[in-house]
Amino acid sequence: MKRLIENLSIVTMEKSDQPVITGSIAIENDVLVGVGSVPDGFEPDEIINGSGQLALPGLINAHTHMAMSLLRNYADDMPLMSWLSDKIWPVEAGLTPNDVYLGTMLSIAEMIRTGCTTFNDMYFEMEEVAKAVEQSGVRATLGRGMIGNDREGLEKLANTRTLFKDWHGKADGRIRVSVAPHAPYTCSDGFILKSIDLAKELGTEIHIHLSESIDEVSESLEKYKMTPIQKMEQLGMFKLKTNAAHCVHLYDQDFEILKAHDVSVLYNPSSNMKLGNGFASIKRMLDQGINVALGTDGASSNNNINMFEEMHLCALVNKGITGDPTALPAYKALEIATINGAKALGIDDLTGSLKIGKKADLILMDLNKPHLCPQYDLIAMLVYSAAASDVKSVMVDGRFLMRDYVIETFDEKNIMESANKAAHALINRTQKG
Amino acid sequence: MKRLIENLSIVTMEKSDQPVITGSIAIENDVLVGVGSVPDGFEPDEIINGSGQLALPGLINAHTHMAMSLLRNYADDMPLMSWLSDKIWPVEAGLTPNDVYLGTMLSIAEMIRTGCTTFNDMYFEMEEVAKAVEQSGVRATLGRGMIGNDREGLEKLANTRTLFKDWHGKADGRIRVSVAPHAPYTCSDGFILKSIDLAKELGTEIHIHLSESIDEVSESLEKYKMTPIQKMEQLGMFKLKTNAAHCVHLYDQDFEILKAHDVSVLYNPSSNMKLGNGFASIKRMLDQGINVALGTDGASSNNNINMFEEMHLCALVNKGITGDPTALPAYKALEIATINGAKALGIDDLTGSLKIGKKADLILMDLNKPHLCPQYDLIAMLVYSAAASDVKSVMVDGRFLMRDYVIETFDEKNIMESANKAAHALINRTQKG
Ligand SMILES: [Zn+2]
Ligand SMILES: [Zn+2]
Repeated sequence: MKRLIENLSIVTMEKSDQPVITGSIAIENDVLVGVGSVPDGFEPDEIINGSGQLALPGLINAHTHMAMSLLRNYADDMPLMSWLSDKIWPVEAGLTPNDVYLGTMLSIAEMIRTGCTTFNDMYFEMEEVAKAVEQSGVRATLGRGMIGNDREGLEKLANTRTLFKDWHGKADGRIRVSVAPHAPYTCSDGFILKSIDLAKELGTEIHIHLSESIDEVSESLEKYKMTPIQKMEQLGMFKLKTNAAHCVHLYDQDFEILKAHDVSVLYNPSSNMKLGNGFASIKRMLDQGINVALGTDGASSNNNINMFEEMHLCALVNKGITGDPTALPAYKALEIATINGAKALGIDDLTGSLKIGKKADLILMDLNKPHLCPQYDLIAMLVYSAAASDVKSVMVDGRFLMRDYVIETFDEKNIMESANKAAHALINRTQKG
Repeated sequence: MKRLIENLSIVTMEKSDQPVITGSIAIENDVLVGVGSVPDGFEPDEIINGSGQLALPGLINAHTHMAMSLLRNYADDMPLMSWLSDKIWPVEAGLTPNDVYLGTMLSIAEMIRTGCTTFNDMYFEMEEVAKAVEQSGVRATLGRGMIGNDREGLEKLANTRTLFKDWHGKADGRIRVSVAPHAPYTCSDGFILKSIDLAKELGTEIHIHLSESIDEVSESLEKYKMTPIQKMEQLGMFKLKTNAAHCVHLYDQDFEILKAHDVSVLYNPSSNMKLGNGFASIKRMLDQGINVALGTDGASSNNNINMFEEMHLCALVNKGITGDPTALPAYKALEIATINGAKALGIDDLTGSLKIGKKADLILMDLNKPHLCPQYDLIAMLVYSAAASDVKSVMVDGRFLMRDYVIETFDEKNIMESANKAAHALINRTQKG
């Protein structure tokens, strides 16, 4: 199958000095064969008129818990610990495999509609998540979230090994599997060491939460005289490729450790604000050369998985906290939401930018909207003015997952109805009083 | 004309202990005659099925400069002073009356699509803004932005008087006129005193920018040993109803002054962050009983006028800066975006909530979207999950301005094309080099 999309504005995320080009995109099966110009002798089976549209690499949600969409708007505006222990954990304990499947499919519908093509997940019943990825056509890295100590939780390591064997590289290579110990405060040192060994054995990366709240960091300092990041370095985690979600409360040395070991930070501005955890120092991380990627966290602490919103917040909030309107320019926010996510996940050879030879993972935005008029700087437009609802079509591996606002790979209405029913049944059987 | 909208979820903003009711809304001409239930003997000319929809009072944009949409994405990510003096001011100097008309109409299209029914404007060529309001059917308070000293700018006071005479109470009462001295650092004391006298003479409120940047406040302290707010109190401004935009950098005494004189704060989170001015202390203002309303500021420092975005930011950012997830609950953010704006503008007898006897200023949201599924707490849903693009229909004074996503009171496509042309011509004739 050869497709040509003509008359586009194209943001390749390959050249910061020429961020926008105009022309065509040529796709052969799953691969980009022309970006801007058409290769000699290219004879398309289909020609699509892209005038009035802009092509951008699909956004990459680098940290999420997709199935938590089932708990969206179930409990909000509460202190963190009672939110978790009275509301979220009791409901999560009652989630069935089918709930996880439906919650993930619901989130995949939202993810496609909001211009995201790849997600990095940490949850449980991950075989269900893998099935949802396979069926819907998106790209994902999946980690079985593991809480454990020296005696308990060891079956989760086995579970991760099975998940890797069954799903890593599957769905035409769209699925990858990571090793995902939840956090230093929920895993013993012994369990962390076993997780590191497993990641080494499987040759894959680690996905973990680090330094999310002040309490987490102070308790670590009190108990171990080390920050969570210093502690993970000491245990040898960072000798392997590691992706660390949050990193909100860092000490000077933490920045240096992250940089020295090429740890990627997975930044979640909405979740960090909504839970009262504050603001990660993104400007400083970038200045020190740390790779920062962007995520939504789960929909229960957001309460959506809209990457355009996160990108917008990333650019605005970091100007606010530094007092510097030049602190985080629009192009940098776009990098954080695209190519930096691909680098974190080790798939920047496949996706994250529009480049000949990479997979055709792209979104088309409809520019005929009053809030996108007039048109000057299209990069500023994407970050400061655009909304996720401007995403008109979404393609992964050269296949349209959404075309002209219609999701093509599954029945969206049916998923919404089933997910809504499953969510209410779940709450009814798990809530007390 | 009698209309009945049935089977709705209704957020009245009248009862915080019962924020969501279900039922019908009955409208007779421009007025709400039933909210939740239908009045006895009501015989509608039209019955509308509202199932799967939610009704909310139209949002109120309490501080903006509508025509600045023409400068959207023209200059961004720059230090404040060079942004203003090299980019914004030279272009503004070249704006024609027709440019102001087109920029305002463009913003009105965006405002309607994003669920806003009333705006509070400060700009120039305000007769053009008034015409746009009259034509489009929205509600607005208009202030001729005035910069002046004891010799210069006095014609702007006369201009305000004429605007008041020609437009205050016009367009079926949808237009009001305020007195709008720009800011203490752009107006002399003598000019401010003349503005206060004029507001007293006309019996209308004052709209001003106060304490937006650190520099503004430090210069005021250096020159006068008073903050801008202390200075305006001393000049007697606050004996009149006053609406103060920004109030980002306040001293303890400033909070007390604002409360003592019932000054409303017009909060602009996006603009304050984008220009590097920081974060207003909204939680403290609310705790001290100050009326806080919400605005977008001009689209050139935002870069849209999306009140759903501002409401979302208001709820999130204030949790982030206080470190408290309960600091600004969803219902409070909705109040700030609706009824508090109406109070600031002195029109809470007309709009800002859904109540029998008030004008039918309302929006209908389409809840059949994956990011709004499942449905538990609809208040949290509106603030944390919803997007402006979920707004399906908009009504002001009982008239549909947008119905099922189609703007009915003017030709939106034509406005977009004309505004885009005018904007590019404007930049071409005003930019140097
Ligand atoms: Zn997480
Ligand atoms: Zn302003």
